[in-house]
Formats: sequence, C-alpha cells, structure tokens
Amino acid sequence: QGGVHFGMAADGGRVYVPINDMVNTRDGRVYDAKKNGAGVHAVDAASGKVLWRHMASDDCGGRPFGDPGVSSAPTAIPGVLLIDLPVHGDSRGWFKENWQREKMVGLGLPDFRPVQNNIAFNGPVGTTRGIHAEPWDKFVSVATGRIFGAWVDLREGDTYGTVLTAELDSAKAIYIPRGVGNAYQTLEPDTSYVYLVNDHWSPEAEYTFLN
Amino acid sequence: QGGVHFGMAADGGRVYVPINDMVNTRDGRVYDAKKNGAGVHAVDAASGKVLWRHMASDDCGGRPFGDPGVSSAPTAIPGVLLIDLPVHGDSRGWFKENWQREKMVGLGLPDFRPVQNNIAFNGPVGTTRGIHAEPWDKFVSVATGRIFGAWVDLREGDTYGTVLTAELDSAKAIYIPRGVGNAYQTLEPDTSYVYLVNDHWSPEAEYTFLN
Repeated sequence: QGGVHFGMAADGGRVYVPINDMVNTRDGRVYDAKKNGAGVHAVDAASGKVLWRHMASDDCGGRPFGDPGVSSAPTAIPGVLLIDLPVHGDSRGWFKENWQREKMVGLGLPDFRPVQNNIAFNGPVGTTRGIHAEPWDKFVSVATGRIFGAWVDLREGDTYGTVLTAELDSAKAIYIPRGVGNAYQTLEPDTSYVYLVNDHWSPEAEYTFLN
Repeated sequence: QGGVHFGMAADGGRVYVPINDMVNTRDGRVYDAKKNGAGVHAVDAASGKVLWRHMASDDCGGRPFGDPGVSSAPTAIPGVLLIDLPVHGDSRGWFKENWQREKMVGLGLPDFRPVQNNIAFNGPVGTTRGIHAEPWDKFVSVATGRIFGAWVDLREGDTYGTVLTAELDSAKAIYIPRGVGNAYQTLEPDTSYVYLVNDHWSPEAEYTFLN
C-alpha cells in the first residue's frame, strides 16, 4: 500500500531497503521491488521491464543515512570523471539533480557552461551509438534505462589510446572532456540518453565520428 | 524488417509516414506504428504503451520536407513560450536537440544560462507535481512520456492570474520565466520530465510551492 519506499543505511556500505516485495502503485500496476548486488530497482511484474533504479549499492559505501551526497571519482583517462548522483525515490518515481554547477565544480569538474542539451532515445536493447569525438566537453547521463559506455583518449600524449568502460544508469553520470571519444550500447529497452555540451556544432569545424 | 522509419512531407501540412503497421525491431519486440491526428507514435503491441512519438502533425504545418526547424509561439502569459522541437526518428529510436542556446535566442527566448539540470521520473499515470514558483527561469520538456501542464501568472500586474494549459510530449518544450507557477500531471506511464534552471536553490531565499 502507498507505493514504493526507499531507505538507506550505512550497514557495511550496503543499501538497506525497508520495502515490500510486491508493491501496488497508484496506477494499479504491480511493481516487483528488487534488492540485489546491482542495487535497488522496481520491475514491472507483467513485462519484467526495469522501471526505475534507486542507486547502486556501491553508491552508499560509507555514507551516513540521510546524506546521499553527490560524489565523483577520477578514472584512467585524465579529466574523465565518473559521478554518483543521488536519486531520491518516492511513490511517484524519483527525482535527481542531474547536473548542478556549484556542486560539480566542488567535485573537481571544470566550470562547465552548457549551451546545448541533447536527448537520444533508444528503443531496442543493444542500440549502439558512437564513437564520437566532437570538439566540445560533455556531461552524460541517462534518464531511463542503462548503458554500457566506452571512452578512449584520442589526445596526443602519454595517455593516448587509454580505454575506459563503465555502466551508467540513472544514478551515474560521466564528464568527458573534448578529445576523448565517446560511445555506448544500451543494456535496457527504452533508454533515454541525456547530455549537455558546451559548444555548438559549426559548419566550419572538423568532426571525428563513427556511427 | 529493419525497424521503424519515419518520413515527412508538406502535403497540406500533415505528416506523411511511409511505415509498416507492424514492425519488428532488433530486440524482437513488435511495435505498432500508428499515424493519427495526434501525430506518429510507436506502441508496444503487448502492453499498449506508447514507446516514442515522432512529432505532432501541427509541427509540420507548412514546413518543407527536410526542414523541420525548431519554432516557438507566444502564449497568453507574457514571457511564456511554447516550443516545437524537431524529433529525428530512425530504427534506433530518436534524437532531439532539447535546448540549443543560439537557436532558442533566435526564437525570442531570453539568453538563458542554465546552472542546473533536473530530471523527475514519474511511474504511474496521473502523477501530479506542483504548483512550484521558485525564483528562477525554467526550460521544461520530457524525454519519455507525456504531461498535461498548467501554468499561472503569479506576477503583479494586468496578467496576474492568467492560466495556460498545454500537453507536452517529446516534441514540445516550454520556457517559463520566474514568477509563473508551474504544475503538471502525467498522461502516460514512465514519464521522464527534464528541466533546466538558471539559478541554484538557496537556504536564504523564499520559495512558493504546493506539492
């Protein structure tokens, strides 16, 4: 009754979820609320489709209850940062600050000034896009679904050719500076891939991509 | 075979869609591609859920083939602009420039400089959020699903109390200046509501909202 309720505690860095296994939401659909090693998510009991995720269990490592702050981690590619986004679930669904300039600068991101917001919706699982390496920086995340992302450093220097891969769901984002190639494949149907960039396309510029 | 293909022609301002009624996509699911007065959309044949929309037929009024440019229209509330976003469909899903600073300024929007990007995911149909009237301007759209939006002018002056309502799907956006209250209810399950704002929340400021 009353929808899906999420909770969290710092019991050894694992997610704690005081939640019924089967939950009737207001639209009459039955969701199957799961807790497993990959985090918490709500599944449509009829189709098996993942409807939303709370956050991966790793996101809670060491954080006290009630303080699911945004955090970032460096990667093997200089300037590429993986970001854990708090996702606040309730009976309606969830809410997240997908990008917040002050907080992101506080996490070590450059003072990113977006001029464009793009959304790519991918129906089938396995949809592949990229490699793209346009001359702008990107802040990438998903609204719905999940992707396997792959990035490669194409900048001249010691780290040229370095490859990074990661899964992104709604609780993850990645900052990708220009010169780093970006590609992804969807791991769930109906994945909405959302990104901000800080320069516009120009007919005079040269662009590098494989589609 | 080969997925969903969208096309468009300026035959009296209507959408023209050379598309099979039933299409097998790469993930093996069967989509039912519809064309009706409300535009083109792909429906999951098993669940009846709308998977994606191309664009409302009104969006094509008078535009030549191959030139589905972004456009805007004023509303009854001064400063509130409704925006038609071109949505480019192919076998993978679709792509849109959700916000593009230069083009939006060209359409008469203020030179909006976002500092934050929020996403609210709404599971059940009928999920209601608002009224909110925080002290920042907003650029609102959806990635997936569809909403009924309602806006009310709360600024002192001749237009105080003016109400505007509109449906937003992935081919629509709205610009809402500060002082205008914002609320919505979802018309489809799994609606991802995406917005950009140009100021951060502050503990010192006063906020007006009904949840």
